[in-house]
Amino acid sequence: MSAVGRTGVVVRNIPRADKDLIDELQRYGVATVHEAQGRKGLLAPFIRPIQQDVCISGSAITVLVAPGDNWMFHVAVEQCQPGDILVVAPSSPCTDGYFGDLLATSLQARGVRGLVLEAGVRDTKTLREMGFSVWSKAVHAQGTIKETLGSVNIPVVCAGQLVNPGDVVLADDDGVVIVRRQELPAVIASARKRAELEEQKRLRLANGELGLDIYNMRPRLEEKGLIYLESPDQLEE
Amino acid sequence: MSAVGRTGVVVRNIPRADKDLIDELQRYGVATVHEAQGRKGLLAPFIRPIQQDVCISGSAITVLVAPGDNWMFHVAVEQCQPGDILVVAPSSPCTDGYFGDLLATSLQARGVRGLVLEAGVRDTKTLREMGFSVWSKAVHAQGTIKETLGSVNIPVVCAGQLVNPGDVVLADDDGVVIVRRQELPAVIASARKRAELEEQKRLRLANGELGLDIYNMRPRLEEKGLIYLESPDQLEE
Amino acid sequence: MSAVGRTGVVVRNIPRADKDLIDELQRYGVATVHEAQGRKGLLAPFIRPIQQDVCISGSAITVLVAPGDNWMFHVAVEQCQPGDILVVAPSSPCTDGYFGDLLATSLQARGVRGLVLEAGVRDTKTLREMGFSVWSKAVHAQGTIKETLGSVNIPVVCAGQLVNPGDVVLADDDGVVIVRRQELPAVIASARKRAELEEQKRLRLANGELGLDIYNMRPRLEEKGLIYLESPDQLEE
Amino acid sequence: MSAVGRTGVVVRNIPRADKDLIDELQRYGVATVHEAQGRKGLLAPFIRPIQQDVCISGSAITVLVAPGDNWMFHVAVEQCQPGDILVVAPSSPCTDGYFGDLLATSLQARGVRGLVLEAGVRDTKTLREMGFSVWSKAVHAQGTIKETLGSVNIPVVCAGQLVNPGDVVLADDDGVVIVRRQELPAVIASARKRAELEEQKRLRLANGELGLDIYNMRPRLEEKGLIYLESPDQLEE
Amino acid sequence: MSAVGRTGVVVRNIPRADKDLIDELQRYGVATVHEAQGRKGLLAPFIRPIQQDVCISGSAITVLVAPGDNWMFHVAVEQCQPGDILVVAPSSPCTDGYFGDLLATSLQARGVRGLVLEAGVRDTKTLREMGFSVWSKAVHAQGTIKETLGSVNIPVVCAGQLVNPGDVVLADDDGVVIVRRQELPAVIASARKRAELEEQKRLRLANGELGLDIYNMRPRLEEKGLIYLESPDQLEE
Amino acid sequence: MSAVGRTGVVVRNIPRADKDLIDELQRYGVATVHEAQGRKGLLAPFIRPIQQDVCISGSAITVLVAPGDNWMFHVAVEQCQPGDILVVAPSSPCTDGYFGDLLATSLQARGVRGLVLEAGVRDTKTLREMGFSVWSKAVHAQGTIKETLGSVNIPVVCAGQLVNPGDVVLADDDGVVIVRRQELPAVIASARKRAELEEQKRLRLANGELGLDIYNMRPRLEEKGLIYLESPDQLEE
Repeated sequence: MSAVGRTGVVVRNIPRADKDLIDELQRYGVATVHEAQGRKGLLAPFIRPIQQDVCISGSAITVLVAPGDNWMFHVAVEQCQPGDILVVAPSSPCTDGYFGDLLATSLQARGVRGLVLEAGVRDTKTLREMGFSVWSKAVHAQGTIKETLGSVNIPVVCAGQLVNPGDVVLADDDGVVIVRRQELPAVIASARKRAELEEQKRLRLANGELGLDIYNMRPRLEEKGLIYLESPDQLEE
Repeated sequence: MSAVGRTGVVVRNIPRADKDLIDELQRYGVATVHEAQGRKGLLAPFIRPIQQDVCISGSAITVLVAPGDNWMFHVAVEQCQPGDILVVAPSSPCTDGYFGDLLATSLQARGVRGLVLEAGVRDTKTLREMGFSVWSKAVHAQGTIKETLGSVNIPVVCAGQLVNPGDVVLADDDGVVIVRRQELPAVIASARKRAELEEQKRLRLANGELGLDIYNMRPRLEEKGLIYLESPDQLEE
Repeated sequence: MSAVGRTGVVVRNIPRADKDLIDELQRYGVATVHEAQGRKGLLAPFIRPIQQDVCISGSAITVLVAPGDNWMFHVAVEQCQPGDILVVAPSSPCTDGYFGDLLATSLQARGVRGLVLEAGVRDTKTLREMGFSVWSKAVHAQGTIKETLGSVNIPVVCAGQLVNPGDVVLADDDGVVIVRRQELPAVIASARKRAELEEQKRLRLANGELGLDIYNMRPRLEEKGLIYLESPDQLEE
Repeated sequence: MSAVGRTGVVVRNIPRADKDLIDELQRYGVATVHEAQGRKGLLAPFIRPIQQDVCISGSAITVLVAPGDNWMFHVAVEQCQPGDILVVAPSSPCTDGYFGDLLATSLQARGVRGLVLEAGVRDTKTLREMGFSVWSKAVHAQGTIKETLGSVNIPVVCAGQLVNPGDVVLADDDGVVIVRRQELPAVIASARKRAELEEQKRLRLANGELGLDIYNMRPRLEEKGLIYLESPDQLEE
Repeated sequence: MSAVGRTGVVVRNIPRADKDLIDELQRYGVATVHEAQGRKGLLAPFIRPIQQDVCISGSAITVLVAPGDNWMFHVAVEQCQPGDILVVAPSSPCTDGYFGDLLATSLQARGVRGLVLEAGVRDTKTLREMGFSVWSKAVHAQGTIKETLGSVNIPVVCAGQLVNPGDVVLADDDGVVIVRRQELPAVIASARKRAELEEQKRLRLANGELGLDIYNMRPRLEEKGLIYLESPDQLEE
Repeated sequence: MSAVGRTGVVVRNIPRADKDLIDELQRYGVATVHEAQGRKGLLAPFIRPIQQDVCISGSAITVLVAPGDNWMFHVAVEQCQPGDILVVAPSSPCTDGYFGDLLATSLQARGVRGLVLEAGVRDTKTLREMGFSVWSKAVHAQGTIKETLGSVNIPVVCAGQLVNPGDVVLADDDGVVIVRRQELPAVIASARKRAELEEQKRLRLANGELGLDIYNMRPRLEEKGLIYLESPDQLEE
């Protein structure tokens, strides 16, 4: 794992997961997939979308950048294939606007589906008009320079999570979750079951049944000592 | 007041304010009602809506939860009536996603109008589609457990304000304000007057009259020492 | 420059830039204009719009206010002309809701285009309905008082930038940038060129050309030591 | 409970807890007392001491202040007795420096032990030299005005906790915890037992015994499914 | 004022205030001087000292730096004279560790008294041992590069305040305040009077007199409507 | 790398680096070692020490914990050897007080040198008295439960950095840096050279030589276009 943080390297050929499975992830959404894989892989909540009601999935092209320096974005574009998502982490905290509509045009021309970025983005109105989706830490017009090497397609830590190139990225209004490439089939299987079960529960709950009964919570609540009072006045006694 | 922070208690029957008065609050909005009751009861500004242009009011069902533990939501559902709003506070700071579409389905089936939560929420796209309104501290898909008791319908401190069960909650794009149940009639009366006066002022201001004149501010400004210079050059003299 | 921070002063007649040039700024947007003037003048990214997809420009009417005190807004209204934008800074950090729909009505009656405020705003739904645009540090219904003098049309520091009365303000979804009044013609000239060049680049990028080639980056990347590996396995060697 | 947030009131005679019990709290410290009373009453962690290695306890004189206005401090001084601690909350978020060495001199002359403040403090070097202890949200020299009424000795919400006048305050390097006046004897009894038990555990732990064995955790960990691997290589299998 | 934000410029000869007056400022401290000059010039409270109980004053050598780039520090050293203080602002928000013991050695060799920095600092233990005082936004070991020009001795905005080269800097445990060079004599005169008055008040307060009486606050409090209740029970009535 | 985030696993035997080399790291400190290994491995600056002027190094025992749940600390103690440092990351953001003096007693009995924790700590005064060093995200007395499994000695992401069990941890007043176990000899070699060079530079700088000359910066500054003005007046021209 010593490649994390290494600069000056581009890995050309990375493994990618099965495209149909990647696309299927979008049916379930971030919250369900996060549960389906045992509550891991979730990026920190300060990563927020610049658009609403969009859900994308794809293969991670990882990018390590220097603070205030977006040079590696240009290097990364060449490594992208249709269905990819850029996942970008700066080597020290930064809110500068690394990314705007020109880079988005270039990525869109290669079929890239979106960007996840632990830093700032700009040209946000144009990006929404283009339909290029972005999850970022900040919106900030501050420009960046092109002086220092980072890396492309090495493992990076983005918003608190390790992301390997080729890992699967799922992003929606709730945030971003990373699925390990090798674990995708198992996660999909688990998410399918979970979605089915949730659909059944939803129907029962919509009909007025209580979670207390559906999940048989009452005995355990009683065992833990939960008591019911008939009125607020009893609180003071 | 020693019930604040007490765990393991559910109060079944709480007093609620008059339904028509509760509904009337929505006409005035959070900013006006906050003024009408003497500038108290306003939750901290980090509580933000996940939807836009929605205003709801209702009776508070209060919920105290352990950090990262949403068990008490299920207990609270049973205590809800049509027109209620859940007000939830964790016993220590937490951004986990306590609440999603399944719980919302259950609350909606009971006629609950929305949720105010000093923690995180998930399934936000679905919640907007369902028309279930939420004001929260964070959007985060992180799941929670069901291990530790909290309480339902005891006084809680949510986002810096004490909320009693049955207090009236008003929430819109500006945030959330709490009106004491007993004070609702007086607050409504004051809000009506305020709204009427504001309407008159709005007309005068729209016609180009100045607040300086409408409120007769000039003498007091002069008395405080305000001076007028004819050009910026005079600043340097 | 000793006028910064001085209280109790209103400057009546301030110079303004050419109206056509001010309006032209809106064609380019904040990110481009920030670049065009050498990456200066950008407000901190915590200043966010309450509306989406709106871009305005105008002449700055600057306002220094005491914390929790919006008295100077009323004084400022009288100094406004059509095409102006209020730029407001508190003398110590504050998130109170200084500004709502009544003041907006008054400003709109005078042709003011919007407000940039390093503090809180309220009545946000109504402001959006009115089409009065606001960029602020917070949305908060908390009311303010009218007790302490500030100043109008002195230089202020707002969100980290010095703003002189009559400077040109440009605000869109990316944030807010200040252009010195005297520098506007040069900045416009530079922005025009930049926009034209960007349009050409956009076409080439949309056609699949790489920034690596358009900007001839490959030799310099090689010189800095960038290496390409054929697969992730080579990282471990 | 409708007094929370009410302005313009001073309550002269408040009940206070037994002085010896109040003093005894200092033996146990904030972490132990917080546990001893069932993990409630703890102020948010953004309240930090300006001094190190000091622990004080006392009866709360509560003060509600307007943002940027410290007038009520002067009103509060008159209500103080030896052994009291001021607990101050602003009606909206504020970091101004409400409190400095002159007010501390006045409080010290009346035997007040310290200040807990959800706002800013100044003259911190002098305060440390005087031995007047302060826990605050910020250190900031920004001055305040004297224009708006608050209240003294009504219930206030400070840093997320409801504090009643006469409640017992305990503050040390870990933060601040509030003990309800009526509950002090029970909390002391519980804290004594807890401290004793902790001392026994400390000896065993210092001798190298493991918590796993002292608390008999192994069976439950096994039941939950914890597995032991002999080397990191087994992780990859 | 158009020089703010301009890069690529070093101003060699700047005016400095009278050395004895600069030194006298240290007697009064930041809180008193901030008051003495009408509550202006105070840096934001996120600027904190890395040492305790140190107060310094000096002439500002201003430095504008690029984010993550400390090149201009070396340029600035040459412009320093004994008694100066470096005031450094990045052109976009940054917490990198721009400054450590080597640069401090160089500045100390030239008689520089300290550093005020809206960014990060490192080698903090060594800096305290050397007696070189620093006020910064962060402590962070993250290194910086030397690629992009900033400026030395132009007006900069640091932590929300405009600072001109040659302005007077006063820094202690409460934070940092800037005094305009031209205003120093008047500010000193005002601070002297203020300090004298405070000394008198301190004596009276230490003797148990109340601020309520010394400042004759009772009539105005009564006029504003302050009421006194004899016990908490009266609150509920 | 799929072990990151996996729960319910303890790895018993982990490789550790050479003890003498680990100890030698303390001579150089975090800032120098961070530079010596190419500016990687540095934890985010929100991780702060609870003590001053302490530097420790050791082998990482990594711990993944559930939010608000410190059960895994007890499991981790058993895996510790003299010279180890605990590195703890919660699976979602949390400021609770996971760690206090009892756990420290247990760790100290096993020769553990300290704790790095992306969460809260309590009993801080006692910890300082015991000489047990801690770097944490918060000081908070809030207690935790023991209900949910995490893992011990799997790779974790702590404060933005991947940490493997057996990696080398260096922590001082500037923060915390992680050195890969396999890279320690090379990093030590580089740090030695760097320290030697810095010593030479320090002497020259202390003698008044300028960095501008020592590093031969003048030609490159000129080439980039840096200009010198003789007085501020020239700025306005």
